[in-house]
Amino acid sequence: MDAATLWQRYQDWLYYHEGLGLYLDVSRMGFDDAEVEALNPKFVKAFEEMAALEAGAIANPDENRMVGHYWLRDPDLAPTPEIQKEITETLDKIETFVQKVRIGTVHPPKAQKFTDILSIGIGGSALGPQFVAQALAPDNPPLDIHFIDNSDPAGIDRTLAGLGDRLASTLVFVISKSGGTPETRNGMVEVQKVFVDRGLDFAKQAVAITGVDSKLDNLAKSEGWLTTFPMADWVGGRTSELSAVGLPAAALQGIDIRAMLAGAKEMDEATRVRELKNNPAALLALAWYYAGNGKGDKDMVVLPYKDSLLLFSRYLQQLVMESLGKEKDLDGNVVNQGIAVYGNKGSTDQHAYVQQLREGVPNFFMTFIEVLEDRNGHSPEIEPGATSGDYLSGFLQGTRTALYENQRDSLTLTIPQVNPRTVGAMVALYERAVGLYASLVNINAYHQPGVEAGKKAAAAILELQTQVMEVLKSASEPLSLADLAKAAGRREDVEAIYKIVRHLHANQRGMTLTGNLGKPATIEVSMT
Amino acid sequence: MDAATLWQRYQDWLYYHEGLGLYLDVSRMGFDDAEVEALNPKFVKAFEEMAALEAGAIANPDENRMVGHYWLRDPDLAPTPEIQKEITETLDKIETFVQKVRIGTVHPPKAQKFTDILSIGIGGSALGPQFVAQALAPDNPPLDIHFIDNSDPAGIDRTLAGLGDRLASTLVFVISKSGGTPETRNGMVEVQKVFVDRGLDFAKQAVAITGVDSKLDNLAKSEGWLTTFPMADWVGGRTSELSAVGLPAAALQGIDIRAMLAGAKEMDEATRVRELKNNPAALLALAWYYAGNGKGDKDMVVLPYKDSLLLFSRYLQQLVMESLGKEKDLDGNVVNQGIAVYGNKGSTDQHAYVQQLREGVPNFFMTFIEVLEDRNGHSPEIEPGATSGDYLSGFLQGTRTALYENQRDSLTLTIPQVNPRTVGAMVALYERAVGLYASLVNINAYHQPGVEAGKKAAAAILELQTQVMEVLKSASEPLSLADLAKAAGRREDVEAIYKIVRHLHANQRGMTLTGNLGKPATIEVSMT
Repeated sequence: MDAATLWQRYQDWLYYHEGLGLYLDVSRMGFDDAEVEALNPKFVKAFEEMAALEAGAIANPDENRMVGHYWLRDPDLAPTPEIQKEITETLDKIETFVQKVRIGTVHPPKAQKFTDILSIGIGGSALGPQFVAQALAPDNPPLDIHFIDNSDPAGIDRTLAGLGDRLASTLVFVISKSGGTPETRNGMVEVQKVFVDRGLDFAKQAVAITGVDSKLDNLAKSEGWLTTFPMADWVGGRTSELSAVGLPAAALQGIDIRAMLAGAKEMDEATRVRELKNNPAALLALAWYYAGNGKGDKDMVVLPYKDSLLLFSRYLQQLVMESLGKEKDLDGNVVNQGIAVYGNKGSTDQHAYVQQLREGVPNFFMTFIEVLEDRNGHSPEIEPGATSGDYLSGFLQGTRTALYENQRDSLTLTIPQVNPRTVGAMVALYERAVGLYASLVNINAYHQPGVEAGKKAAAAILELQTQVMEVLKSASEPLSLADLAKAAGRREDVEAIYKIVRHLHANQRGMTLTGNLGKPATIEVSMT
Repeated sequence: MDAATLWQRYQDWLYYHEGLGLYLDVSRMGFDDAEVEALNPKFVKAFEEMAALEAGAIANPDENRMVGHYWLRDPDLAPTPEIQKEITETLDKIETFVQKVRIGTVHPPKAQKFTDILSIGIGGSALGPQFVAQALAPDNPPLDIHFIDNSDPAGIDRTLAGLGDRLASTLVFVISKSGGTPETRNGMVEVQKVFVDRGLDFAKQAVAITGVDSKLDNLAKSEGWLTTFPMADWVGGRTSELSAVGLPAAALQGIDIRAMLAGAKEMDEATRVRELKNNPAALLALAWYYAGNGKGDKDMVVLPYKDSLLLFSRYLQQLVMESLGKEKDLDGNVVNQGIAVYGNKGSTDQHAYVQQLREGVPNFFMTFIEVLEDRNGHSPEIEPGATSGDYLSGFLQGTRTALYENQRDSLTLTIPQVNPRTVGAMVALYERAVGLYASLVNINAYHQPGVEAGKKAAAAILELQTQVMEVLKSASEPLSLADLAKAAGRREDVEAIYKIVRHLHANQRGMTLTGNLGKPATIEVSMT
């Protein structure tokens, strides 16, 4: 394509949202007009389905749930007065609580004010808050945030060591819709034990963010925790950042949550437009569909050229992959859908793998994220006429050009600065794009049936561990792995038993192993 | 495969390194004996090429350089006495300097001791030090480390704000082999300006890690920086963690660098074995080859079940993708090789995208990394007989099983704990695996020819910016983008010019734009 034609294509496809100062450029995705035309009926259907979903249709039939994260930003759209009230009351409750913490009306037993937040949650209860904290928290936030987002004992120790004595002035959030997520429960139990060890009163520093009447909700009420914020049934974990999951922590860090909600609302409005070229979420869905042939044939590499957006791709991994990675379509056909997402930040990642992107396996398309404002304030010149930010901008343009020359497709999202409004808008933009794309490929974006199998298999391992320990405790002599499996009535599970005893052995849990650890057949196990 | 056969396969393929306590399990990669047999000649060749490389063969013909990162761990293997001396003297110099900093013989002008390190570098000069710091630094290291790994002005500001007044007691490392990497140079210049603004003496707090006689080396010498550590010509950026790039910072954080080197040396020895089943790097290369059909058809998802190893996959992205992502093979055929790498940590990532891994696009294979020791010290029980670490272990086993049931291949690397020796061993294991895999697919793993194009394109953008500013400064009236391009003699580059003026406009650089920013044809530009 000659330069003039390409420039015309760029202008023809450039999307600009004047209110948000946000641009989306899909001109470097290689689709032609005929391909776009052919997708039109699918988009008509997608727009219709999205309108029905926003009106309160049961969009998650497996779980018989509505999908209502859009209502969070515009409660007037909620399908019932009850839901509308729930949204506004929760927001009021959050703001009142945050205000009390900030002025010290709500404070820890042994200090005048809370200094830190410890947020315990995983998946949708961690990725949004982590992304927003890194993107938007000021340099010296009123409260500093820390996370426990795993069941790793050493990781928990590291986080608590970072808090040190400030644990006594730390507000603990426990975030789990069901209250039954094991990683979150484990983190909570470990932290509670540390509170007890240090003579601190956990309940007086704890907040539950959970479904009404969940196990966690009941625990918090019975123990008299500081407060509880409700997680609504109609908000999925991966779209919960602008709900009670994300807003309390954001507000406590001094982030303007009303601006985040306003940015998301503006984007929601812009992505209701039933016209491909004037709807940035539809343009994204089009780009994804074209790139991966509607089958996820290409990975989505996401590179924000701005350090504070580093976690956006981790946030998108969940939003995109958990929503779109499905075995079956809505008609029950096996389709194995999905789009793999990865990336950290530019230009840093250029020095890691632009070599492969330009020359290697062409199994991806690129999402560049450009932030027009370099920094808050004046930039020194590195050399006459050029700043660090000019270089960063040049690296983005240069990489985009170098990839285009080698037939690697890319799209570019441009925002004026990283602020609560634009972050809210980006969250909303991708939520909608995922929903529209799911319609294009005829899948349910709002469930996650594949997660169950791993959970069940993990529970089976823990159950097996209990059986193994029982057998060993009553055994009169060391047992081979095969005999141990037999005695536990689990002959099929020798390998799992080997892993279990190897792990217990490494953690001084009273397990003695003899033989060559690398030759399972030689091992004998006993327990003291 | 029935349980007994699978258990036999597990035992047949299990690799165990007794000295390191390290296991590698490739039994869940679906290859059969015939496929392995067919690859044997390729492995014979790969082992031979690796031996030649270690003996000092010119393995990077494009750049006429030897590849010698293995010698760092065992200087006796270096091909000349000069190189041997260079290695031991550099290590001595590092340890002497570190000792002086720790006892305060070397100290900043305005403080008794250095408290922090600010490491300025990108790519290979950042990823290793970042990974090692997160994996191995103690909770309260003698010196805390901070990074500038980009040309993002806001990111630089954020890092400096985190240091605050401690900048006066911060040891600054500037790491760049050529001294010409723009991101690193920009970071250094910005930091130098802040030193001047605060009345601090940069040279008295700065260390250069760079090639002998590079631009940076000469600058450091002429300005009288504290010291300089040499980056050897025969160590590539992505294999430089165990050289002067990674060791000084590690040692200053209290990490046992001799143990890291020893672990790498042990692994180097283990991966010289010319027998597939007894060489863990060859087993990795086999698994990668099988998974991706020798063409990178599948992504490598890397999930360490340990928070402190979170950055290992970012480290591997560079090592694997920059080494293997090549357009041409050694015979000049266009092959577009590579393997895409992504992942963060388990079980956290299970809650983000195990849905897609189990049910969605089968375009990946999994690398589980298991750490046997849960934490340093005793673990409380979460429920009778089970700890947080037991859960973490169960999640790994459960996910592996759930993926296997759906025909998703995985391999599992197990280490006894995260310590300097095992981290050194993992670095060495993957370095060797990349080298062997490159032989299998007949490519040069040690150059990066595709990086140049992006650099050139970026330089062209900065040059264009200068031209645009010159035209605007001498223009008597506002210009349309087309007229501006014409006046600059760059009619082909209207789009790039649009991006440049949009960026300058957003940063108060004296640029005035009128018209609709989203409709480039309506824009007129002038400069004040």
